[in-house]
Amino acid sequence: MTPLAVALGDPAGIGPEVVAKAWETRVEHRLLPFFAVGDQRSIEAVWHGPVERISTPAEAARCFGFALPLIQVDDPGEILLGQPNLAGARCALDSLELAVGLTNAGAACALVTAPVSKVQLYAIGFTHSGQTEFIAERCGIAAGNVVMMLVGPTLRTVPVTTHIPFTCVKERLNIDLIVSRSRVTARGLARDFDIVDPRLAIAGLNPHAGEQGELGREEIEIVMPAIEALRNEGILVEGPLAADTMFHARARARYDAAICLYHDQALIPLKTLHFDEGVNMTLGLPIVRAAPDHGTAFDIAGRDIAHPGAMIAAISLAASCAQRRAHGG
Amino acid sequence: MTPLAVALGDPAGIGPEVVAKAWETRVEHRLLPFFAVGDQRSIEAVWHGPVERISTPAEAARCFGFALPLIQVDDPGEILLGQPNLAGARCALDSLELAVGLTNAGAACALVTAPVSKVQLYAIGFTHSGQTEFIAERCGIAAGNVVMMLVGPTLRTVPVTTHIPFTCVKERLNIDLIVSRSRVTARGLARDFDIVDPRLAIAGLNPHAGEQGELGREEIEIVMPAIEALRNEGILVEGPLAADTMFHARARARYDAAICLYHDQALIPLKTLHFDEGVNMTLGLPIVRAAPDHGTAFDIAGRDIAHPGAMIAAISLAASCAQRRAHGG
Repeated sequence: MTPLAVALGDPAGIGPEVVAKAWETRVEHRLLPFFAVGDQRSIEAVWHGPVERISTPAEAARCFGFALPLIQVDDPGEILLGQPNLAGARCALDSLELAVGLTNAGAACALVTAPVSKVQLYAIGFTHSGQTEFIAERCGIAAGNVVMMLVGPTLRTVPVTTHIPFTCVKERLNIDLIVSRSRVTARGLARDFDIVDPRLAIAGLNPHAGEQGELGREEIEIVMPAIEALRNEGILVEGPLAADTMFHARARARYDAAICLYHDQALIPLKTLHFDEGVNMTLGLPIVRAAPDHGTAFDIAGRDIAHPGAMIAAISLAASCAQRRAHGG
Repeated sequence: MTPLAVALGDPAGIGPEVVAKAWETRVEHRLLPFFAVGDQRSIEAVWHGPVERISTPAEAARCFGFALPLIQVDDPGEILLGQPNLAGARCALDSLELAVGLTNAGAACALVTAPVSKVQLYAIGFTHSGQTEFIAERCGIAAGNVVMMLVGPTLRTVPVTTHIPFTCVKERLNIDLIVSRSRVTARGLARDFDIVDPRLAIAGLNPHAGEQGELGREEIEIVMPAIEALRNEGILVEGPLAADTMFHARARARYDAAICLYHDQALIPLKTLHFDEGVNMTLGLPIVRAAPDHGTAFDIAGRDIAHPGAMIAAISLAASCAQRRAHGG
């Protein structure tokens, strides 16, 4: 196995801190070797552990036991913690680009990305809506064909629509979108999670999943036809389920992933249960990609209080998915 | 203190079973005396413990230690478990009407209601949209002025809009509605929960609470003005908060109730965390009213598998609210 590539994200955010803290737990969490991609000073500004500069991913395994391996990108100059600027955004983009390239080339077995500031990226001319879309393009996959899956220790959720206003959800939803997101999810669970026949549970849009049309007709007009189409493809799927009663412990035991129709329907249960451990996996890519499900948290950068749980979970999960791919073929 | 009145709900559902099972736990949960209002046979069909018929609430305390006290309503004739019919609906309505009347008259200190079938109630000419609206009318309160609060051991949520289609949420929301629901909630927490200065947290409607208008403007146009109006009344309120990050344990510690803008935003976190213990409290009434937050569950009626946790929690909570009212005023 090659090591994992971890892009440090915005150097003014908590990315460097949580990556360094994740490295500190390598024994406890039995982490596979990984290397950071970014600016060495951004780590040294928040962490006093050992960093070892490397030039190629192959060197990572040699030093991972005693130092955090790092591939340096172009020096961004002075970065002030908690104060994002354009130089930091360029550094974040350089890190991302290099880490994606190395993973695509097979020099890293998986890609993990720390958070970036989209506002800053847009200001330097970044034209993708986020890191995921950039990664998809570099992998030659249409952004619409990749799926965000949130993963916690006891729950996986997939939002069919993501960062759009509440009032736009209805117009964006359609049968094909639910089918394609569900299909990518089922394949991802089979390929990367070793689940032979993944069971999907699809949420309804309305209270009580619409009560047979009494409280809305999207379940009848959109969700049920999607479920029928998926079943015709041989995918195990149940629904439409009432969204409020599908996330308690006994309900979660009945499926491998919940397909949710809008952002908060997927994110509320995930973050309510697993706030410090949520991982954002991108399914449908030729590479394995995971990210901690939190933002740059500029407000707490440099205060040594950032929780590394989600970064540790992202590295762990990406490593096990990569191992399954290596094992599976 | 007078005893609590517990209406048994639809006799073909799980109401009688969970009330009887709650009585069985009276020592363990230190339950105040309560009496059931409904049909004795509906209990005997599902439970082999002792039932004692009483004619007035005052007799409940005498026998509560050794039998479940019951005030019989008109005999509904034969009821088949799991098979709701019109006679059962009439029995449920009789039970509700008598229990409300006794509570209103001060013969019971609080009202607890087991679930009914709205479909069956509508079929016998019931013109209210649910039990809550019926109770409000009997108490002389406009249905629009009472508030449903879901209560679990670590979370309280209030849905500003309730059983309406997803696509109708936006049109139903307005500043006044958020303000009035929040005001009733704050008063209820002060009066019935002994919280001197209740802290409310109001959710946003859009992902990430709209990101300063980038993902929707309802936070700016509706939620923020409501918050300002509430603060001008001296109510402690924060928000609009991103709905996905306001329900994990550390976030919940910062408020006494979450004001949510639609059904699933309030119900998903509550039922994800507290599926078997959720209580539906009605705030804004002259009487204390609580109900277990589950339905008639006709599919499992009579199988002796209904979980009494929510009924026990409803009885317990109603009793402590009634004690605080008796103490406070």
